[in-house]
Amino acid sequence: MNKCFISRRRRLCNLLQEKGLEVLIITQPANLYYLTGFTGEAGALVAMRAEAALIIDGRFTVQAREEARGVSIRLQKSTLPEAVGRFLRAARVKRVGYDPAALSVAQFRELRRAAGGGRVWRELSGLVEGLRAQKDPSEIAQIRNAARLASNVLIDILKLLKPGVREFEIAAEIEYQMRRRGASGPAFQTIVAFGERSALPHARPTGRKLGKKELVVLDLGAILGHYCSDITRTVFVGRAPERIRHWYRAVREAQAAAVAAARAGVECGEVDGAARRVLAGYRLDRYFVHSTGHGLGLEVHEEPRVAQGQKQRLKPGSTITIEPGVYVPGTGGIRIEDDVAVLPEGSEVLTRVPRDFIEL
Amino acid sequence: MNKCFISRRRRLCNLLQEKGLEVLIITQPANLYYLTGFTGEAGALVAMRAEAALIIDGRFTVQAREEARGVSIRLQKSTLPEAVGRFLRAARVKRVGYDPAALSVAQFRELRRAAGGGRVWRELSGLVEGLRAQKDPSEIAQIRNAARLASNVLIDILKLLKPGVREFEIAAEIEYQMRRRGASGPAFQTIVAFGERSALPHARPTGRKLGKKELVVLDLGAILGHYCSDITRTVFVGRAPERIRHWYRAVREAQAAAVAAARAGVECGEVDGAARRVLAGYRLDRYFVHSTGHGLGLEVHEEPRVAQGQKQRLKPGSTITIEPGVYVPGTGGIRIEDDVAVLPEGSEVLTRVPRDFIEL
Repeated sequence: MNKCFISRRRRLCNLLQEKGLEVLIITQPANLYYLTGFTGEAGALVAMRAEAALIIDGRFTVQAREEARGVSIRLQKSTLPEAVGRFLRAARVKRVGYDPAALSVAQFRELRRAAGGGRVWRELSGLVEGLRAQKDPSEIAQIRNAARLASNVLIDILKLLKPGVREFEIAAEIEYQMRRRGASGPAFQTIVAFGERSALPHARPTGRKLGKKELVVLDLGAILGHYCSDITRTVFVGRAPERIRHWYRAVREAQAAAVAAARAGVECGEVDGAARRVLAGYRLDRYFVHSTGHGLGLEVHEEPRVAQGQKQRLKPGSTITIEPGVYVPGTGGIRIEDDVAVLPEGSEVLTRVPRDFIEL
Repeated sequence: MNKCFISRRRRLCNLLQEKGLEVLIITQPANLYYLTGFTGEAGALVAMRAEAALIIDGRFTVQAREEARGVSIRLQKSTLPEAVGRFLRAARVKRVGYDPAALSVAQFRELRRAAGGGRVWRELSGLVEGLRAQKDPSEIAQIRNAARLASNVLIDILKLLKPGVREFEIAAEIEYQMRRRGASGPAFQTIVAFGERSALPHARPTGRKLGKKELVVLDLGAILGHYCSDITRTVFVGRAPERIRHWYRAVREAQAAAVAAARAGVECGEVDGAARRVLAGYRLDRYFVHSTGHGLGLEVHEEPRVAQGQKQRLKPGSTITIEPGVYVPGTGGIRIEDDVAVLPEGSEVLTRVPRDFIEL
C-alpha cells in the first residue's frame, strides 16, 4: 500500500502547485489515512511540495512511525492547532491552505496566532475529499469486499427474525457476525427497527420485541480493510397487508430507477430525481424525507451527495449508496439500499441481497 | 426523565441571563440530548430565555417529536447553519452566544450570513459542558451501571485469552457481550493488544494471534442508558518475567495514588501529578506518554481533563477515569484504568475488577 500513499500525496502536491499554495493543512482522520496510512484518530498533516509532516500527540508516536512511512513525524508539545502554527512559523511558509469546514472557529484562531503574522491564509474546501471521491480499482475492490460481508451478514440474520426477539439483540448479532468475519467494526450504528419504529429513518435499536405481522428495517454496514459498506433491506414477518406491498413495490421501483440512472456523466441530482419521480407516480414522494444516497469509501458518508439539485456529475470510480424510502409516521417505513460503483461503462451493484419483497 | 431536561434548560437560561445573552446555539449531539432528550446525531438547539427551538432535518422529525417534549421542533429546509441563521433573523434576537469550538469556520460564516446584520455574536465555550461535568446522583447511577456492565464483560472475557486467539476475535466477543447485556454499543473502539502491540496506547485490534507468555491490554467501555464507562486491565498469559512485574507494580501504585488523590477541591493537575510522581520514583515516568484521565458521562471524553498543569478543581459529581500507563516501544505496555465518581466526602470507584496482577 505504501506506493499508493506516495502517489496520492504527489497528486495533492500537483493540485497545490496549480493553486499557488505552499502547504495544505489536513486534520480529518480519513484524509490522514488516505494520504499517509496513519490510522490514529487525531493529528494534522502539513502537506508541502517536497515533503509532508505529520504532527501527532504522544499516544500515537509508535503507531505513526509504523504506519506513515515516508512522512516526517513530529510530536506536538501543546494543542494540535498551536503545534501546527509553530511548525508553519519555523518552516517560514507564506501561503497556507486550510479547509474551513474542518477547523473550528477556535482552532483556526489558535492556529493563526501560533503561526504568527506575514502568512496568507487561503480557503480550500474538500481538496482531498475530491481525490477520495474517485476510487481506483483497488479501492472499489475493498468496498466490494465490505459490501459482500455486510450482504452475507444480512442474509444470515433474517433467520433470527422471530416474534419475541428484541431490536438490540438483532443489532448485537449483526455487529458480532461482522466482526467474526473480519470487519474492524460497524460502519455506523446498526439500525434495527420493528413495526411502527421503521418509520424512523435513523431509529436506534431499543428493547422493543418483534410482534407477529410486522415490518422490519435492517440497515447495516461494515468497515473492512478501512473501507465502508452500507445496505438496507425491509422485510415483513408474516403475510403483509396490501398497503405495505404497494409501498414496497413503489420503493423497489424507485430504487431500481435510481440505480439505472447512476452512470458516468450523470448529475447526482438526476439520480435522486429518478427515484423521486417514481415515488411521485405512486403519490408517495412526500413520505420520502431524505436524499437518495451518498458517497461511501473510507467514511460511510462522503462526497458526492446524491440529493435534489446536486449538479455534481458521477465519474468512473464514484461509489455511492442508492437508498430511497417511504416513511409513514405511526405506521411504518420501507427502505431499500445498495452500494453502486460507477464504471467507465455502466455500473456495478456491490451489495448482493435479493430485492424482492421477503415475507418471513 | 422529562423533568430533568426542563430543569437543565432552566439552569442554562439562568446562565444566559447572567451573561446578558438572549440565545445560545447548541449543536453538539451530547448537549442536545442533555438539554432535550433528543438522540439524533444532527440538529441545533436555539436555547432562549422563554423557550427552546430544536432545528432538525427530515430524517429526525418523528424522533424529535417523540423525544424532545416541551421544545418547539422546526424542520430545516436548507443546511443547518442557514436554517439556524434564518430562525435568529425571524426571531429578531440581538445578542447571540455560540461555541467557537463547536462550529467550523465555514458553518459560522454561513450562520452569520443567514442571520443578517445587526446581531452581536458572543463566544461562549463549554457552557453546557460545564453543567454536564457535574453529574447528579441519577447520572452517577447510570455511569455506575455502565461501569458494572463493562466490568462484568471484562471478567468474563479473561477466560477466552488462550494462545492462538486473535485480537479482533476478542474485541468482537467483548462488544457482543456488552450488547447482550443491554448496552447500546461500545463507548469507543475496543482496544485488544497482545504482546509488543500493548505498547501502543490506542492500538486497534488486528488479526495478530496471542502467543504464550505475552501481555494483554484490554480497554473497553459500554454505553448504557446513554452514559459511558471506560475500563482497562492488563494481564499476562503465562508466568511474567520480573521486569513486567516491576512495571505492573509501578503502574498499580501510581493508579492507586491518583485514585486516592481524586477528591472534591483538588486540582486535576494534582491527580495527574500523584500518578506521575510514583512513576518517577520508579524512573518510568518517561514511558507514561499520555494524561492520567478524563471526565466521562454522555461522552467518553468530556470535561475535566486530568492532565499536567490542569488547574480545574474536582467537585462533588465530577466523574473521571484514572488510567496511568507505562509503554516501552517494541516490548509492551501496561495500563490500569478505573472510573471514579467524586462525592461530597471522598469518592466511589465505579468499576469493579481486581487490580492485582493476573497471570492466566
